[in-house]
Amino acid sequence: MSAESLHLQYSMDIPMLLQNLLQGAARHHRQSGVVSVIDGVTYRHSYADCELRARKVAQVLGELGVKAGDRVATLAWNDHRHFELYFGVSGMGAICHTINPRLFVEQILHIVNDAQDRVIFFSPDFLQLVTQIASNCPSVVRWIMLGEPDPTLRVGGSKPLSYEALLARHDGDYAWPALDERSAAFLCYTSGTTGNPKGAVYSHRATVLHAYACALPDSHNVSAREVVMPAVPMFHANAWEAPFSATLTGARLVLPGPKLDGESLYRLIEAEGVTFAIGVPTVWFSLLRHMQERGLRFSTLRRVLLGGSATPNSMIEGYAELDVELYQGWGMTETAALTTCAQPLKSHAAMSPAERRQAIFSSAGRIVPGADMRIVDDNGEPLPWDGSTGHLQVRAPWVISHYYKASESALHDGWLPTGDLAEISSDGFMRLADRSKDLIKSGGEWISSVEIENIVAGLPGVQAAACIAAAHPKWGERPLLVIEPALGSKLVEEDILRHFEGRIATWSRPDAVLFVESIPLTATGKLFKLKLRELYGNYLMNRS
Amino acid sequence: MSAESLHLQYSMDIPMLLQNLLQGAARHHRQSGVVSVIDGVTYRHSYADCELRARKVAQVLGELGVKAGDRVATLAWNDHRHFELYFGVSGMGAICHTINPRLFVEQILHIVNDAQDRVIFFSPDFLQLVTQIASNCPSVVRWIMLGEPDPTLRVGGSKPLSYEALLARHDGDYAWPALDERSAAFLCYTSGTTGNPKGAVYSHRATVLHAYACALPDSHNVSAREVVMPAVPMFHANAWEAPFSATLTGARLVLPGPKLDGESLYRLIEAEGVTFAIGVPTVWFSLLRHMQERGLRFSTLRRVLLGGSATPNSMIEGYAELDVELYQGWGMTETAALTTCAQPLKSHAAMSPAERRQAIFSSAGRIVPGADMRIVDDNGEPLPWDGSTGHLQVRAPWVISHYYKASESALHDGWLPTGDLAEISSDGFMRLADRSKDLIKSGGEWISSVEIENIVAGLPGVQAAACIAAAHPKWGERPLLVIEPALGSKLVEEDILRHFEGRIATWSRPDAVLFVESIPLTATGKLFKLKLRELYGNYLMNRS
Repeated sequence: MSAESLHLQYSMDIPMLLQNLLQGAARHHRQSGVVSVIDGVTYRHSYADCELRARKVAQVLGELGVKAGDRVATLAWNDHRHFELYFGVSGMGAICHTINPRLFVEQILHIVNDAQDRVIFFSPDFLQLVTQIASNCPSVVRWIMLGEPDPTLRVGGSKPLSYEALLARHDGDYAWPALDERSAAFLCYTSGTTGNPKGAVYSHRATVLHAYACALPDSHNVSAREVVMPAVPMFHANAWEAPFSATLTGARLVLPGPKLDGESLYRLIEAEGVTFAIGVPTVWFSLLRHMQERGLRFSTLRRVLLGGSATPNSMIEGYAELDVELYQGWGMTETAALTTCAQPLKSHAAMSPAERRQAIFSSAGRIVPGADMRIVDDNGEPLPWDGSTGHLQVRAPWVISHYYKASESALHDGWLPTGDLAEISSDGFMRLADRSKDLIKSGGEWISSVEIENIVAGLPGVQAAACIAAAHPKWGERPLLVIEPALGSKLVEEDILRHFEGRIATWSRPDAVLFVESIPLTATGKLFKLKLRELYGNYLMNRS
Repeated sequence: MSAESLHLQYSMDIPMLLQNLLQGAARHHRQSGVVSVIDGVTYRHSYADCELRARKVAQVLGELGVKAGDRVATLAWNDHRHFELYFGVSGMGAICHTINPRLFVEQILHIVNDAQDRVIFFSPDFLQLVTQIASNCPSVVRWIMLGEPDPTLRVGGSKPLSYEALLARHDGDYAWPALDERSAAFLCYTSGTTGNPKGAVYSHRATVLHAYACALPDSHNVSAREVVMPAVPMFHANAWEAPFSATLTGARLVLPGPKLDGESLYRLIEAEGVTFAIGVPTVWFSLLRHMQERGLRFSTLRRVLLGGSATPNSMIEGYAELDVELYQGWGMTETAALTTCAQPLKSHAAMSPAERRQAIFSSAGRIVPGADMRIVDDNGEPLPWDGSTGHLQVRAPWVISHYYKASESALHDGWLPTGDLAEISSDGFMRLADRSKDLIKSGGEWISSVEIENIVAGLPGVQAAACIAAAHPKWGERPLLVIEPALGSKLVEEDILRHFEGRIATWSRPDAVLFVESIPLTATGKLFKLKLRELYGNYLMNRS
């Protein structure tokens, strides 16, 4: 053996595979597992139960002729069956395609046909959806219902199979194959706010490494003592890695199903002793209101990781009064979610708690260990971390280099452009200025729509606010603020405009305020600005 | 492109290399870095400084003709230069061989020649050692002193080079090479208690993955807010990964140099605000005594990870009174140190703090995420986790599969035998029974030497205790307890033997107690039982 070949062979050759995570939890965390709520029924499975059922999923897929590299899709909520499918599908070498059921039907059809899904597992809640699309999905050979289908039921002309009946036919006597750790494990499409959804693929290696990075103290901070509840969907960038950071560390995982209203969440958190949760601000806002109205407190919940949109200060302080620390993370489908996370540094210790919360919440946080980020100017030249604003780019072993089936790279110069404008402070905190395409260019000056939205986000009477670029005869574009008022709100345009006084330069204040019944959201709950521009982009032209 | 090749190429192809860790800290943790004490002088370097100096190390090695795969050795304490060498040597593709200076001279000669080291960096403290061995180390082309060598000095007939002078000749304009992540990064020899030391090699991939596993909440628990001090040598299994878990997360790293006496450590901990430290119990015992005698308290220190030998209960409670949590880890040179770590589960929450400490300290802990362990019987069959005792075996991507230059595998059936006997509880806590070879076989029954040592470990007047198998005319072997009394102790054999009453079955108590001036220790500070058996193995034969 040559010296070169020798010096590569001294460490155990163990690939980073998702089945190894689940097997580890099954062997070493027997007291822990997955709690799942489906139609009001609570299911409890140890990690060993989950691993056995995941092996049965692999057997079912083998029986159906699914091969390594095939796409197997899910239309499912956060529950134990979705969790088993994550591991069963990817562990046998197929690619688990988590479909976002909130996409438009045409988009879902597009992605099923783009992915060429062979099998689709669906929750009974999506029966209407699948009957609607089935005849236009020629690649799909089997529809499998996560429940007991009525015998008379037909999907695309044939009977859907019953998930539990299929599993019951197998014994779990199955050995996980020794896959290449760079094999694709998951396929997750972007929400397509700017065109057709594009597929982001996560390999086993990417997912396992990201699980380590997410479990770290400055990210999810998960030990075997935690009870973790992702209230962000498992079809949305794998619920920001929570199922994997929990499995890796042996934390208990609580999967709440579709019911994310305040009362349901509060009951579940208390019943299961949830200590750490993840989700978008709207969910946690409803829960806070539910608790404040009833004077409730949490027995165990201590931390909530938020992402996706701005968090009103009143909500941060409301949770602080309940001894719950909210903190922000940032990521995209293309980065397998969590890329930055806003935890304090030693230097924040001298601040008062409220000051510290404000300082931390003004940023999207610091880089998750193992990832990297930078800001560049319009020519792609790196900018200093001194308050300069530039195009945000990221790198990590869990970030995509190509979209699904794309032959050209998604990268520029080895980095993934995020489409966001941001600044980075000298101590590594990243602050998002705006999506590049959401900036408003007024007479040669850039105005941040996010900055305007943040100013009114905490205002009583405002349910939601979106600022868009509206065409203007003199300035090219000017900010238009679209407001969805809270129930019973008596706010008028004057009140809103007055609120900007002293908070932002005169020239960058909105020209007008438009009240609408409801602001359209994208499938992932973000402000659907493309739609708003279609609807109201000429509002100022007509007015002036 | 075929479907197979396509589905391996969607994630960014970023290898796990140590230079990436250091570059990450340099870019994202500018407020943090390495504090180092050499000869009473405190040096402060940011991670960016360290990365620059590591690049200069790589330039120096290139200038000296060192190639990828060459071995470059260190004889050094825990300081910033050793830290730079870790990254500079491995980052340029060479293998950083950390020599344990506490080995016997013959052993050091053996390993330098076995490793065929090309360059040796040495601290001035080891000048006598290197002048003693230099002429018998033909592979070594350069001796480089980590300090300013006297111009008249000769090592092996030639002038040693000055580290700082060499670094000053370079500008750091060096790009880290894109290494294979499976390349060897470190070479660390075992202490050779049972024969010649054997080389354990850690790859870049192994070390980076282990850094993630060690930084997790149930292991080192390191965030960017921590100040980490490894008081375990960097030549001993890379100081149990502390330099890497700190670099990965941006924690500040405090390297204390050789002075580990109570007063020096206390001053350093207070001056630098150390929050988390690592070391062997003897070091922390001296520090506790120093503090108790002076009524001192810690301002910032909260956690200490111990390993290597048993911890007396009085010490655990002594630190608890100082609001410092001690906890145990276990590992070996072959496992790149930390493999299990004793942190509580949710189920321990109901216990009183003292009960919990006792429960946790009776075990070596649970598996570090990503590793695996099992116990097997004499035929290699896995045993249940129900109180059965068996041979402990481990697996992990950071565990060796072969010793350095060995052609045969070190594994049995894919697992590394540890030479330890252990039991594992149903909730995953591993308790070491004994080293297989240290068990005492008395008339067909096995007696644990560790169990006997633990019983007297906390006894006032006992400085150190070692139990060995002594030949016995009737029983084959019987336990002999060797005691090193504390200064001024008036303990006699009777007192010691009486202490076993009610604590252990009559037949498994020691037959005799032998008082010696000092118990010999191995180079890594463990009880040198092989030596004790040579000296006292016939003690009971002569006596009976």
